[in-house]
Amino acid sequence: MTGQRSIDLNSDVGESFGNWRLPDEDMLGVVSSANIACGFHAGDPKTILSSVRTAAAEGVAVGAHIGYRDLAGFGRRFIDYDPAELVADVLYQLAALDGLARTAGTRISYVKPHGGMYNTIVTHEVQARAVIDAIAEFDETLPVLLLPGGYALDYAREQGLRGVAEAFADRSYNPDGTLVSRREPDAVLHETSEVVENMLRLAEEGALIARDGTRIETEAESICTHGDTAGAVQMARSVREALEGAGVEIRSFTAA
Amino acid sequence: MTGQRSIDLNSDVGESFGNWRLPDEDMLGVVSSANIACGFHAGDPKTILSSVRTAAAEGVAVGAHIGYRDLAGFGRRFIDYDPAELVADVLYQLAALDGLARTAGTRISYVKPHGGMYNTIVTHEVQARAVIDAIAEFDETLPVLLLPGGYALDYAREQGLRGVAEAFADRSYNPDGTLVSRREPDAVLHETSEVVENMLRLAEEGALIARDGTRIETEAESICTHGDTAGAVQMARSVREALEGAGVEIRSFTAA
Amino acid sequence: MTGQRSIDLNSDVGESFGNWRLPDEDMLGVVSSANIACGFHAGDPKTILSSVRTAAAEGVAVGAHIGYRDLAGFGRRFIDYDPAELVADVLYQLAALDGLARTAGTRISYVKPHGGMYNTIVTHEVQARAVIDAIAEFDETLPVLLLPGGYALDYAREQGLRGVAEAFADRSYNPDGTLVSRREPDAVLHETSEVVENMLRLAEEGALIARDGTRIETEAESICTHGDTAGAVQMARSVREALEGAGVEIRSFTAA
Amino acid sequence: MTGQRSIDLNSDVGESFGNWRLPDEDMLGVVSSANIACGFHAGDPKTILSSVRTAAAEGVAVGAHIGYRDLAGFGRRFIDYDPAELVADVLYQLAALDGLARTAGTRISYVKPHGGMYNTIVTHEVQARAVIDAIAEFDETLPVLLLPGGYALDYAREQGLRGVAEAFADRSYNPDGTLVSRREPDAVLHETSEVVENMLRLAEEGALIARDGTRIETEAESICTHGDTAGAVQMARSVREALEGAGVEIRSFTAA
Repeated sequence: MTGQRSIDLNSDVGESFGNWRLPDEDMLGVVSSANIACGFHAGDPKTILSSVRTAAAEGVAVGAHIGYRDLAGFGRRFIDYDPAELVADVLYQLAALDGLARTAGTRISYVKPHGGMYNTIVTHEVQARAVIDAIAEFDETLPVLLLPGGYALDYAREQGLRGVAEAFADRSYNPDGTLVSRREPDAVLHETSEVVENMLRLAEEGALIARDGTRIETEAESICTHGDTAGAVQMARSVREALEGAGVEIRSFTAA
Repeated sequence: MTGQRSIDLNSDVGESFGNWRLPDEDMLGVVSSANIACGFHAGDPKTILSSVRTAAAEGVAVGAHIGYRDLAGFGRRFIDYDPAELVADVLYQLAALDGLARTAGTRISYVKPHGGMYNTIVTHEVQARAVIDAIAEFDETLPVLLLPGGYALDYAREQGLRGVAEAFADRSYNPDGTLVSRREPDAVLHETSEVVENMLRLAEEGALIARDGTRIETEAESICTHGDTAGAVQMARSVREALEGAGVEIRSFTAA
Repeated sequence: MTGQRSIDLNSDVGESFGNWRLPDEDMLGVVSSANIACGFHAGDPKTILSSVRTAAAEGVAVGAHIGYRDLAGFGRRFIDYDPAELVADVLYQLAALDGLARTAGTRISYVKPHGGMYNTIVTHEVQARAVIDAIAEFDETLPVLLLPGGYALDYAREQGLRGVAEAFADRSYNPDGTLVSRREPDAVLHETSEVVENMLRLAEEGALIARDGTRIETEAESICTHGDTAGAVQMARSVREALEGAGVEIRSFTAA
Repeated sequence: MTGQRSIDLNSDVGESFGNWRLPDEDMLGVVSSANIACGFHAGDPKTILSSVRTAAAEGVAVGAHIGYRDLAGFGRRFIDYDPAELVADVLYQLAALDGLARTAGTRISYVKPHGGMYNTIVTHEVQARAVIDAIAEFDETLPVLLLPGGYALDYAREQGLRGVAEAFADRSYNPDGTLVSRREPDAVLHETSEVVENMLRLAEEGALIARDGTRIETEAESICTHGDTAGAVQMARSVREALEGAGVEIRSFTAA
């Protein structure tokens, strides 16, 4: 995948809840793909509807950011779901977001599991199958945005879904392509220049550089950025501007 | 509307939540229209999905039983919603149920507001407009099942929606067509024979008899029955059998 | 513990939620110890308050039935809590129930973890320490009712808490004292006579008989019964009557 | 109450929920009384516990900020509670916060209803009696912080509770002592100097000045400030410093 001159930027959007506001809707002016909360880990209907409408108006791809039913834990805690309950919770969220997207004249165009669900299905085969089967049942043409190298990505492809891998703009990598654990001091990159350099290499060469200098070829087609604080929004904006300045087109992986 | 030889039976379905089970899914063998909970006043996704699938399999019309976001109050308590929040909560519920219905090969074919919302919009114009506008925005061809004589029914029709009025199988009526308050001892009818006699008259003559004997012409096209207890299910089954025995066809008001 | 002529009966109480009612309050006429829900896995405040008041009036010991924050899963699903969040959730529940008990002129006199939490802390050391530490912080004189043989029971005793083991009236046992898995056909006992025989042996001899006939000495000081259905309440009542008829006194393990 | 040289500052604290953070805990270095959320309109147990402990450590009075059960509406929407349910919801919240305060070596020392509940009980007699009766049942020595001139304040005093009135630092007043509606452009004061001047007058003379210049004698013993944004925290800090600079002591109305 070296030599690509376009890449997708994705970010979590619609994660405000009632009186608790996040600035994540500002990301709709930055990214090409919006992972919009569906109400289970975050997002009240008014917030979600607003995010969907803005995304539609700005031409940003609407992704269903499905999560565990756990507002108190923001969907970040593993929950040992019964598979049938997990299937139903995923279908419900896809249905809700897709229906809201229809009222805004668009549709969901991909799915990204959130937080605990995202991490769990890298290795938890029962939950991975429940989540992927639910997506396939809802609409087998929906791409699924996932961590590269996990069980969920393999299983999605086995089921005929398009599995799309992503890289993380502000995280450092081990030589084997896994993320450096957040428990280590250099897990998160804070320098915009370093982030920009990495993402430019990704867009142009399809490669990441591990923290020890090892070059990692990756199939990532999307860059995950953050918008949960004002600083994070600014970082994402800088990455976009730098990429565009270098002639890289920012566009959804769902674009033709 | 005298002389009709068919009528609709509707009942609330899908109101179990997690470990708390109601026998309401048994009503899917009795009624022609199922008001299926959408998860805000009752109904977890697994329950809702099961109800939708059974309704689809049995040929029962799927109605969206939209409600206030209040599991603790079962959607029965008035909540002074901001109209924009109410619109969004209604759209979200319609979207979720319709999307689940699609996965079962059907669609929602009508909407019935639940409990506190149902009663509030009889007179509360701001909320009535929010609810009806949301339904119209979602799908202007959806009929809305409502109490006869209220503001919401008028407003729905003004907006070009089909407003369908209903009668209550087990309630006694005042001469002006309003329900006898539950605070009065004879508000609820417990004798199956009396209920059957009333509903037969409704189906055949389009009329109800008030508790003082006054004849009330009504536009009701649907009979509301209950399935929240085993006894209620049996009552509804008896009504259906008696109506059918008298040659009245039980069919959805959405049927051609 | 052979030769004891008294034993405790405990049951879950207060697990109704809003409109969803369980008959578990009937158990307050049967048991000596009530595991009263604290609002996180089940129980709304009005239900909890009613259960606490009835328990106080009937002289039934009030136990705090603490659980995971998961109404949709009834607290039965493992949730991978951060320990500090688990400590806080346990303290909050203990505080709420104890304060309600004070308004009824009593206090909580023991703690029993519920469902997923109960099962998890048999082996999950981090969660076990969080739960037990929270109980000890709240009131180090509170006994904790647990499964015999698990880590939580050992850790509670190490921390100076009184750990009380329980047996299950309607479950069959393996020769090593563990419960027969619910996946096996004979996991649950349905014959009242068999249950009564087992519990009588427990009260009189401190022993259980495994399904292969092996005699198991046990330290269980309490018998867990169920009240979530009308049939379960009747089973529990029969056990109590049979035990009393055989001269066994039913009394709380917290009684002097 | 002219000539007083001390006054209370109160603010809402503990209103973060899970991943959604407010800077309100910074107010614990500013105010003398902390209205700490109890988990129904805001506040998860870990947040609440942290706020209670910090308040205890800083010598700030712990108030129970009781609210409607409505996280999605932040407790700001009127809910038409059944009185028995409202009594139970209030008792549960008081119990939870008081028990957490005990674990921090303190107690709740007053109660302030929040948002929709606060505004409703100014005129809604049924809910006012439910709320006040619940507080009196929990602990008849607890002062209640309320809007001056309302039914709840009168009823609280009739029941033998100490009713404490408050003034709002950043709001303008009508000549009759009521707040200028937020619908009017000059409802909220943004100039620190104006706020400081008003609050100094209140502390020294027991009077407010209405927007038309009318002098209003008030019984307010506490000043309500805000901490939901960084700017609000700074405003409150300025008010405190200005008051102290003018020789006014900031201390809880519960201080001897």
